[in-house]
Amino acid sequence: MESMFGHHISAQYNEELEDLRNRVLNMGGLVEQQIADAVTALVEGDGERCEQVINRDVNVNSMEVEIDEECTRILARRQPAAGDLRLIVAIIKTITDLERIGDQAEKVARIGLHLMEMERPKNRYMEIYNLGEHVRHMMHHTLDVFARLDPEAALQVTREDKNIDNEYEGVMRQMVTYIMEDPRTIRRSLDIMWSLRALERIGDHSKNICEYVIYLVNGKDVRHLSLEQMENAVRSRSGRKGQ
Amino acid sequence: MESMFGHHISAQYNEELEDLRNRVLNMGGLVEQQIADAVTALVEGDGERCEQVINRDVNVNSMEVEIDEECTRILARRQPAAGDLRLIVAIIKTITDLERIGDQAEKVARIGLHLMEMERPKNRYMEIYNLGEHVRHMMHHTLDVFARLDPEAALQVTREDKNIDNEYEGVMRQMVTYIMEDPRTIRRSLDIMWSLRALERIGDHSKNICEYVIYLVNGKDVRHLSLEQMENAVRSRSGRKGQ
Repeated sequence: MESMFGHHISAQYNEELEDLRNRVLNMGGLVEQQIADAVTALVEGDGERCEQVINRDVNVNSMEVEIDEECTRILARRQPAAGDLRLIVAIIKTITDLERIGDQAEKVARIGLHLMEMERPKNRYMEIYNLGEHVRHMMHHTLDVFARLDPEAALQVTREDKNIDNEYEGVMRQMVTYIMEDPRTIRRSLDIMWSLRALERIGDHSKNICEYVIYLVNGKDVRHLSLEQMENAVRSRSGRKGQ
Repeated sequence: MESMFGHHISAQYNEELEDLRNRVLNMGGLVEQQIADAVTALVEGDGERCEQVINRDVNVNSMEVEIDEECTRILARRQPAAGDLRLIVAIIKTITDLERIGDQAEKVARIGLHLMEMERPKNRYMEIYNLGEHVRHMMHHTLDVFARLDPEAALQVTREDKNIDNEYEGVMRQMVTYIMEDPRTIRRSLDIMWSLRALERIGDHSKNICEYVIYLVNGKDVRHLSLEQMENAVRSRSGRKGQ
């Protein structure tokens, strides 16, 4: 799919589009790191690392603003059509989701600081570690999907989100049982639940990004469709692809 | 600010932009109704109304997809510049937030159905009703801001979000106390907390929309700024306004 873009007579325009995609991938890389660091910091009770994640969120924010400005600049100067236009629109949406993933990572780090004031649970936050790992993998795959503009891989990641939702529902039910058994730990349990919810939301944002890639490559808006409908949309390929 | 757009020689282009703004306002009106209905249905334990809200969410979703397509079509055919371009970009972002506000309203309605299976609390979900009313007002003001493209009013709404956040924090603390006093009501209390959180997130999305309006009118990206910095940005007016 690399050849979908970079076909312009203007070498500078090609470079601009390529540069834009690289910037999105860099922003995604930073956000992925933020998730990993936030989860590790929380699980290990590492306050310094929590602070680092919180402070680094401004970098994520300014990357979003810069990429956004560059998109508007290209729209105004290059007046892109068809595939290029869809690329720019997809990027404008993608960076919004990346920025919000960054916010969720920051939230996990803040809860990490809060949890440090309480007794560590016997399982050492195993449920947060596990869900965090799954979400981080999903995020990594999402960046691959964006880098390779691969709608089939996008479908796979969308399926991962279903698993993450199921895992999330399961551990949330477990947390409710813990609170009922020992209400004195409610503050800690609620903090754990907020962290789990933040991680689950990262899964949703990753899924959004995958849907933008499908739209970008196939020209089909697959948001709000069931998984089965999405698969049909991607595989029929009768859409506006390559228009 | 109405005259900011509608200045094109092509009468049809003017109509397209006007039509686009009206569609966003219609979508916003539907979403506002969804918030009101979801909160009333939950508070009154009205299952039928909960179902209605849940079923109507597909209408919100299809409005988003249609407006999105219209934006891409205008970008491709009209190749808008400056203010018009910012309008289109702001609309692409606004409808994403409106759609997610709709998702939160649907979530409140689903929790409403769930709560019907449990005993009603003595205060008849007063905390949800109150926060719901504030959020619905904020949403209404946000649509006014968008209709009048008024950055000063946008600042005011942004301040309302701060109040909503404070109210939310207060009632959440109260809920924790309730659970500790009577852990048997934890399921109901958690449902109430999830509803409150959904409402609080609607406030965040409304704030996002106000920030897009400031960007649109003043050409300044005010996301990630403090309230004070935002005020300076709006009032200095040394930006790219009307460019």
